[in-house]
Amino acid sequence: MYTIGVDIGGMSVKVGLVDENGKIISQCREKTAPTPDEVIFKMANQIKSLIEGASLSVKDIKGIGIGCPGAVTSETGMVAFLPNLGWRDVPIAKELQKLIDLPVKISNDANVAALGEAIYGCARDYDTSVMFTLGTGVGGGIIINKKLYEGGHSRGAELGHMTLVMDGEPCTCGRNGCIECYVSATALMKQTKEEMNKNPESLMWQIVGGDINKVDGKTAFDCAKKGDKSAITVRDNYVKYLSESILNMLNIFRPDAFILGGGVSLQGRELTEPVTEYCEKFNYGYEDAPKTKILTATLGNDAGIIGAAALFNE
Amino acid sequence: MYTIGVDIGGMSVKVGLVDENGKIISQCREKTAPTPDEVIFKMANQIKSLIEGASLSVKDIKGIGIGCPGAVTSETGMVAFLPNLGWRDVPIAKELQKLIDLPVKISNDANVAALGEAIYGCARDYDTSVMFTLGTGVGGGIIINKKLYEGGHSRGAELGHMTLVMDGEPCTCGRNGCIECYVSATALMKQTKEEMNKNPESLMWQIVGGDINKVDGKTAFDCAKKGDKSAITVRDNYVKYLSESILNMLNIFRPDAFILGGGVSLQGRELTEPVTEYCEKFNYGYEDAPKTKILTATLGNDAGIIGAAALFNE
Repeated sequence: MYTIGVDIGGMSVKVGLVDENGKIISQCREKTAPTPDEVIFKMANQIKSLIEGASLSVKDIKGIGIGCPGAVTSETGMVAFLPNLGWRDVPIAKELQKLIDLPVKISNDANVAALGEAIYGCARDYDTSVMFTLGTGVGGGIIINKKLYEGGHSRGAELGHMTLVMDGEPCTCGRNGCIECYVSATALMKQTKEEMNKNPESLMWQIVGGDINKVDGKTAFDCAKKGDKSAITVRDNYVKYLSESILNMLNIFRPDAFILGGGVSLQGRELTEPVTEYCEKFNYGYEDAPKTKILTATLGNDAGIIGAAALFNE
Repeated sequence: MYTIGVDIGGMSVKVGLVDENGKIISQCREKTAPTPDEVIFKMANQIKSLIEGASLSVKDIKGIGIGCPGAVTSETGMVAFLPNLGWRDVPIAKELQKLIDLPVKISNDANVAALGEAIYGCARDYDTSVMFTLGTGVGGGIIINKKLYEGGHSRGAELGHMTLVMDGEPCTCGRNGCIECYVSATALMKQTKEEMNKNPESLMWQIVGGDINKVDGKTAFDCAKKGDKSAITVRDNYVKYLSESILNMLNIFRPDAFILGGGVSLQGRELTEPVTEYCEKFNYGYEDAPKTKILTATLGNDAGIIGAAALFNE
């Protein structure tokens, strides 16, 4: 049996045909249409052509899993609110089923990414895992005993919006000091630029050819490796913010694995090693506490499709 | 059928015979003995005498539920670590069963209090609830669909040890800025005293007869009601700390109910009304977000026994 995974994004809708091992057999991508009806219509066509292209029929497909940004009510298959696309109360599962006779499941994109890693990715050997996606913002997902935990009304697991620094940086959510303001890739770049402006002699200026707009999430980590003091400050502060955020989750969930995804996670061991050290030092219960493995995501750009398909393999 | 609920504390071990409606039929209390073996032996005798005293036999009893402070591994019925009593790796369920042939379940005392409120107390009409116990420290419990969620290895839900103020007040857990340092009764008293020392003309000095050692968790709330500015400052800051801590939980769990227990919760509406207002204002997703009812615990001193008994009524 196969599953269809759909990754709805602000720019494009990606659809993949996924096998039982979580491998994408074939995939296609279309620009995101301007209205929900058009998105759903095009999506149905994308799905049909993938199934036909593989010489399969709907009988070979378990169902269609959809990952979508914004507020998703998975029980009812509704997109409650998707600010980027201006959607509100879109019954996406029901509408898609009118066009293709297959079961449809939907969840938030960060949840789906965590599920994909838990079923087919870096955390496949662990029953319980929590994930932070460190990108433009910070998304999160919670997997308990290989099942997605979305919180009440499937509207929880908004892990990026946990205050870590009360009265700290203003967050888009209306509060201050959310972890998103400290551990997103955006925040890391802001921290890098602030430190560069304080230290005109930092190696980081050379790396970006004197153009601060060329700073990215790697700048500080790359220069820290070369011993640049300002870069080491940025990296160590970032590791502390991230570790404190992770520790809050460990003390609640005690997962077997904690997964870091998104652009910043590409640092790999440069990130996971100091974070692991910090978390083991300050874990509640010290050496008595259950250990959590800190991992980086392995599904990369395919996480959206594979994770959405995994909604049928929980 | 009846259940036995046991509340192990640093000072005393309380045992109760509880009916199916969560009412305590009879109870007894003994000073906590110095060794685990003695505690278990005495507990068995307490249980037997309660059963006999009610003209019942073990056949009328579903099981023995135990709530215990410290780190408890409920899967194995072990007390992993109980610093107050110096216990480590005590197989309490197994040892008790040698003395009474009944099933034994064990959980952390804060978890058990949350379960009691969820099954028999203020949150009985709600499926999913989270509780903070605002006492000397801050305990927590999570109930998902009327079942206790203890985290991986039953060692999570340490909700008091979530950093809210990074690099803030030092916490006994080794980190800084945990919510326990800001929202426990101990913290509220400290905040009250600090404000009093800044304002010798505050009404709070009169209320305590000029003796700062008489400050308790009510001092600031009582004087705030009378319009004392310093007391209002203390109360409003406390409400903010508490609301921010609760919001972190709401954005993860989206519970139907959030329960406040422990001494500070006796403030009732004086506490829940401003906290509700703050939380509804800053809830992630604003008016679209599912609402959570903020409640105060109703089982009081009986929460330990009733909650422990509820381990057989999840």
